[in-house]
Parts: sequence; C-alpha cells; structure tokens
Amino acid sequence: MWRLHQFPLCPFSRAVRFALAEKGVVVELVPVTPWGGRDALVAMNPAGQTPVLENGTLTLCDSMAILEYFDETVERAPLLGAGAAERAEGRRLAAWFAQRFYGEVTAPLLRERMYKRVVTREPPDGNAIRLAGRAAEVQLQYLEYLLDHNRWLAGPTFGVADVVAAAQISVADYLMGIEWGGHEAARTWYSALKSRPSFRSLLSDRMEGVRPPPHYDQLDF
Amino acid sequence: MWRLHQFPLCPFSRAVRFALAEKGVVVELVPVTPWGGRDALVAMNPAGQTPVLENGTLTLCDSMAILEYFDETVERAPLLGAGAAERAEGRRLAAWFAQRFYGEVTAPLLRERMYKRVVTREPPDGNAIRLAGRAAEVQLQYLEYLLDHNRWLAGPTFGVADVVAAAQISVADYLMGIEWGGHEAARTWYSALKSRPSFRSLLSDRMEGVRPPPHYDQLDF
Ligand SMILES: N[C@@H](CCC(=O)N[C@@H](CS)C(=O)NCC(=O)O)C(=O)O
Ligand SMILES: N[C@@H](CCC(=O)N[C@@H](CS)C(=O)NCC(=O)O)C(=O)O
Repeated sequence: MWRLHQFPLCPFSRAVRFALAEKGVVVELVPVTPWGGRDALVAMNPAGQTPVLENGTLTLCDSMAILEYFDETVERAPLLGAGAAERAEGRRLAAWFAQRFYGEVTAPLLRERMYKRVVTREPPDGNAIRLAGRAAEVQLQYLEYLLDHNRWLAGPTFGVADVVAAAQISVADYLMGIEWGGHEAARTWYSALKSRPSFRSLLSDRMEGVRPPPHYDQLDF
Repeated sequence: MWRLHQFPLCPFSRAVRFALAEKGVVVELVPVTPWGGRDALVAMNPAGQTPVLENGTLTLCDSMAILEYFDETVERAPLLGAGAAERAEGRRLAAWFAQRFYGEVTAPLLRERMYKRVVTREPPDGNAIRLAGRAAEVQLQYLEYLLDHNRWLAGPTFGVADVVAAAQISVADYLMGIEWGGHEAARTWYSALKSRPSFRSLLSDRMEGVRPPPHYDQLDF
C-alpha cells in the first residue's frame, strides 16, 4: 500500500492525489508539514518538501516525477497525450503552473492566509495578497487563451496540465484568491473538473484553522 | 533544422545542448537574452525564459519537457534509465538540481557576477556570493553522497540527472562559485563528463564581458 505524506493545502500533493484517483490507485494519506517535523520529512526527501510517496520499499519525491512514474506503470487514464508534441505541451504547461502559478499566486496566499494564521500567528500582508490577486487574474486570462484553442489545457484530451493547474487553482480558491467573475471559459473548465469524483474528494478536505469560502466546493460558483 | 534560442551562461540551455549533442541532434544556436528583446522571447515562450527550441512548425519550451521530447523521439543515448523507479530517481534529481542548485547557487552567481557586470554595471554583493559558495559546498556534498551509492547520479547509467547537474555546475564553475578541493568523487565524475565531446563544445563557449577561471575548461582541475 502506498502512503502519501502530504498536507491538505499543498498544491503539489493535491496534483498527486488527483492523478492517482484518476488512475484508480489507492493511497493512504499521512499528514505531515514541511514546517514541523522537518527531520522526518528530510529523511524521506532531501528537499524537505511534500509530497513524498512511499510503500516501504520505494520512495518517490517530486510531484512531476510521481505523475510520470504512474503514467508509465498504470495504463488507465493516460495523463500525457498520444504524440510527443502533445506530451511536450502538457509538460510545459505543468511546469508553468507549478512554477509560475505557484510562485506568484499559491505560495504568497499560503504564506499570508495559512502559514501566518496557523503557524506564526502574524497578521497577513494586504499588499502581498493584492499582488497575488492580480497575478491570479493574469493566470486566468492565460487559461482562457488556452481554452480558446483546445478542449483541455494542452490538447484534445484531459491530462497533466489540467491536473496541475486544477490543483494550484483549488488551493488559491480555498484561500479566497480567485475572482471567477468574467472568466466563463475557465469557470466551465473548472466546473467540469469539480464534478469528477477523483477531484471531489480533495475538495472535501479541510485544513485546521483555515476555512474556505462557501462557493469553494460547490459545482455552481 | 532545430534552432535553440539561448545564451551561453543559461544552465537550462546548457542541459538541452548537452543532451542533444549526446543524442546526435544538431541544432542551430540563436543568441537571445531574457533581459533584452523580451517581447520576441515571450512571443515564443509565454514564460519569457530561455531555452526555446523551434523548427518553424513546432515550438518546445521548458528544458525538462525538451529533454523528455527527445528521449521519446530519439533512441540513441537514452537519458532516463531502464525501469520506472530509476526513471523516477532521474527526474527527482533533475528537479533537485534545476530548482535547488539553480536557486541557491547558479541564480545568485548569475545575478552577482554576470547580470550586474554586463547589464546594470553595479558592483557584486559579496555576501550573496559567500552564501552561494556555502550552498555550493552543500550541493557538492550531496553529489558525493549520491556517487557513494551509484556510478552515476541516479543509477548505474549516465542520464538526465548527470546532464542537469553538470549544466548547473558548469555555469557556477565559470562564475568561480565551485571550490573543488576536498571533493575527489565529484571531481572524478565531473572530469569524466568534461572529456565527453558533447560537453566539451559547451565549455568552449564564452559570455561576452565575463571571463571564466583558467581551470574551467581543463580536464585536470
Ligand atoms: N518540486 C516539488 C515542490 C514541492 C513543494 O514546493 N512543496 C512545498 C509545500 S506545498 C514544500 O514542501 N515547501 C517547503 C520547502 O520548500 O522547504 C514537487 O513538485 O513536489
Ligand atoms: N523551467 C525553465 C527555467 C528556465 C529559466 O529559468 N531560464 C532563465 C535563464 S537561465 C530565464 O530565462 N530567466 C528569466 C525569467 O525567468 O524571467 C526551464 O527548465 O527551461
């Protein structure tokens, strides 16, 4: 049995949970946080980061390496498209959302609205939150540009770009960082994801001490 | 013919050049910098980053997506090992060096010893350089730990982890950020890479206005 060491608002853990659920791989969730119990995490992953997936024999780190591993070993629900070019586009976009969306939107929101609330008990920095909101707006525009050209983010089929983007967006949405108004195409895309059972179980998770807005887990938002 | 848009001290471009040379894929090098001519770069890559590889029809961005693309389409010199577990380890380490080594060593050195010299003409921040040097020391220790367990970084065969690590190290070494003393195993590994023709052509490249130390392209250092 695989154990996933993760915490509810880690977007990289969410991407792994979403993808494994699509593939029908059952994992046990083990709660861990990078800011507490760091030594145990570093012993499994030198980077000291969540997620870590292990089964007692094999330890896998880095969400993208984990997704690739299961795409290679489990045929069901391929995440990387058929041709090499579509696969490259999926990987490019997965890197974009994991780096750009995370760096400019999710990470500042996690710091201001989660970490400062539950760990250091400082007040949030309003300016950092405003900047994250503006960056989220740019990201949604890019999403809509992509959806103008394709049914899913990287091509005609659901895949890794959708998984990684939805994981980041779901954390930003939990932390009230997404303004859905005026983004119909992005909303339709996200609503389709929200109705997948594989994604719904993620949305029922709560981080202690941080409450999401009411629309967060509703299909109509 | 593929064209690689890059600049001589971009470690991600170097990883692509190294891998493609291993695979025998010939590319034309097109000089471009993310800090000048940004619009042209963003038109090809929304992230505004080097490297970009294109052939007029297809545009590939993100160094790891590019390496995966060529590993899928060109059989020669496989970069990802045989089994799924070894492949996952290669990808984990490639991500480690692209994120951790780059973030803590290469990026600060590029800012202090390249960007400030050739673009803004400011003096370097000695403290930032010292911190990068200390981080490089930790990275070399980790490299030696890996080489204690395996012939190459991720397993018994040369692969993507070696390519990405060597690309980062070569830029840090160019910028005088690597102290080789006391790191025999890392030195032996790097010396073996330096003697590969695919890597040697990289080492003959120079960035205008920034000179590497004399040992930089020597096999004995
Ligand atoms: N490249 C990693 C990134 C994982 C990551 O950044 N995780 C965050 C939590 S959401 C973390 O552990 N941060 C603590 C740290 O970087 O020290 C992946 O894709 O798994
Ligand atoms: N994930 C990208 C990272 C590329 C990257 O960071 N390139 C640097 C130059 S070494 C860059 O273009 N930086 C400018 C920027 O990020 O705006 C890849 O692997 O290709």
